[in-house]
Amino acid sequence: MKYCFGIDIGGTTVKIGLFSETGEMLDRWEISTRKGDDPAELLKDVKDSLENCMAEKGMAKEDILGIGMAAPGPVTADGVLQNAVNIGWGSVKLGEKAEKFIGISPVRIGNDARVAALGEAAFGAGKDAESMLMVTLGTGVGGGVVLHGKILMGSSGVAGEIGHMTIDPYETEYCGCGKKGCLEQYASATGMVRTAKRFLQESKVDSVLRQAEKVTARNLWDAAKNGDSLADEITDFVCSRLGTAIANAIYLVDTEMIVIGGGVSAAGDLLLKKVEKAYQERVFAHSRNKKFVLAELGNDAGICGAAALILQDANKS
Amino acid sequence: MKYCFGIDIGGTTVKIGLFSETGEMLDRWEISTRKGDDPAELLKDVKDSLENCMAEKGMAKEDILGIGMAAPGPVTADGVLQNAVNIGWGSVKLGEKAEKFIGISPVRIGNDARVAALGEAAFGAGKDAESMLMVTLGTGVGGGVVLHGKILMGSSGVAGEIGHMTIDPYETEYCGCGKKGCLEQYASATGMVRTAKRFLQESKVDSVLRQAEKVTARNLWDAAKNGDSLADEITDFVCSRLGTAIANAIYLVDTEMIVIGGGVSAAGDLLLKKVEKAYQERVFAHSRNKKFVLAELGNDAGICGAAALILQDANKS
Repeated sequence: MKYCFGIDIGGTTVKIGLFSETGEMLDRWEISTRKGDDPAELLKDVKDSLENCMAEKGMAKEDILGIGMAAPGPVTADGVLQNAVNIGWGSVKLGEKAEKFIGISPVRIGNDARVAALGEAAFGAGKDAESMLMVTLGTGVGGGVVLHGKILMGSSGVAGEIGHMTIDPYETEYCGCGKKGCLEQYASATGMVRTAKRFLQESKVDSVLRQAEKVTARNLWDAAKNGDSLADEITDFVCSRLGTAIANAIYLVDTEMIVIGGGVSAAGDLLLKKVEKAYQERVFAHSRNKKFVLAELGNDAGICGAAALILQDANKS
Repeated sequence: MKYCFGIDIGGTTVKIGLFSETGEMLDRWEISTRKGDDPAELLKDVKDSLENCMAEKGMAKEDILGIGMAAPGPVTADGVLQNAVNIGWGSVKLGEKAEKFIGISPVRIGNDARVAALGEAAFGAGKDAESMLMVTLGTGVGGGVVLHGKILMGSSGVAGEIGHMTIDPYETEYCGCGKKGCLEQYASATGMVRTAKRFLQESKVDSVLRQAEKVTARNLWDAAKNGDSLADEITDFVCSRLGTAIANAIYLVDTEMIVIGGGVSAAGDLLLKKVEKAYQERVFAHSRNKKFVLAELGNDAGICGAAALILQDANKS
């Protein structure tokens, strides 16, 4: 029996999963993320944690097919993690560095949103689809494109960054990325709150949101579900922006399926319904019939996708 | 020596090319397009033309590796040409039909814009690139995405239809496709004329365009090259729309190269420069350094790409 590790490096914790060669998750745990100028300290923690696991389970290095890693920044085609601002690293060849440091190879890396998309494609909502677009609605908006079961990594590390697609060329406020009019400014959790506040200011219509201590994406969607008409209008608007972005994406990659994940996707069927409707208004008739589904793996998408980076190659040979 | 045919079915003429198995174009000619409810008549003309060529050159059916066809409509993953409105056909499995009718197989089909992109990737501007996005600026705006040398066909036939990406959600006029705010409404030849007329109406600035008998994309670009300030402003605007759409596309497919073709690309370096500048303002720093180039094959891109549909498979085995 052979194994692989799937590792998801986040700003707060590093999630680690042990997988069998057939893709079964055998164990999962977390360690806290050590930040710093250099990945060495974090890699040392990871090494110790993997060695503990292997000692406990009586596994040798030869039993490990490799390590997949989801990294919190853009990753170029030649394996350079560009800028992991959340952790403090500059540009680094993380895969090579990890191979030397941990002494297991190969170590394959990918951007965390792309790897999560691969996780959903290999083990989750997209496992029966030939191709899928994943859109992750969290603090920001991330995404990934999976074609023929393989993640599209792109040449400069931005393939799937649907959150920074320009969706409104007349927007006056800035996105966190320094541009204006990005999808993320409307469809992320923070973008939904920003949009809701604009609507509340510009409209005279009464709404339960006016009584809320704090407007959040969650109480916005709860209000919409409970029939609050302004919340309905606001969620229509953010979903029209999201549906337009997805339509724009389909005009490029034309995947069979669209998977929506991230914290905001807890809004569930109402979100799906509104996005799908907006999407259908923006595409040609013969492209309207796409599967819109919710992500299935939650926080495990990253470690599952990381494992898939290794298992895909292993199963090919 | 083996051969293949590359055929590009247009609204007025059917272009036919004879290629060697190594991709050399040995001959090219055209026949006129017979329109009608059914492809049978057109396929008969094609059959006669191919048989004449084979008889003249002493080629047997066994010498032909296959026929590639660029078709004027969306083509789905299972080979259905959806709606060739310019010719009058409904939905048709053109490849299968042509195989039976002509008696040579395989016949592989693809949408004409996608196949032209493949032509540039295999034989033209993109032949040294791993991946490229092609944007064709003609009467409409078409496009195609080539990844690892293969054309991305997509599941419903719209992969690469960048012309119908929504770029202005506030547009009040309709695109030919029935939606509002498509890139095509600004960046096609007709879109540039429409935009120029808007600017001429709304601005008081003098311009040589006001003296022109008719505003065309060509005299718009000529005026911009000659330093006409309003023409400069108009071309800046249409290129900002185009640069934004290309940036949006790169956030999805992240190709190494962007190839601009079609009649409007005759505007040349000034067009490239303006589009690239607009693109760079819309993407992350590490994705700014993309190659922007003009297409090289002109009207032969379709037959070259059609031949590539066959030769790619032949060279794989």
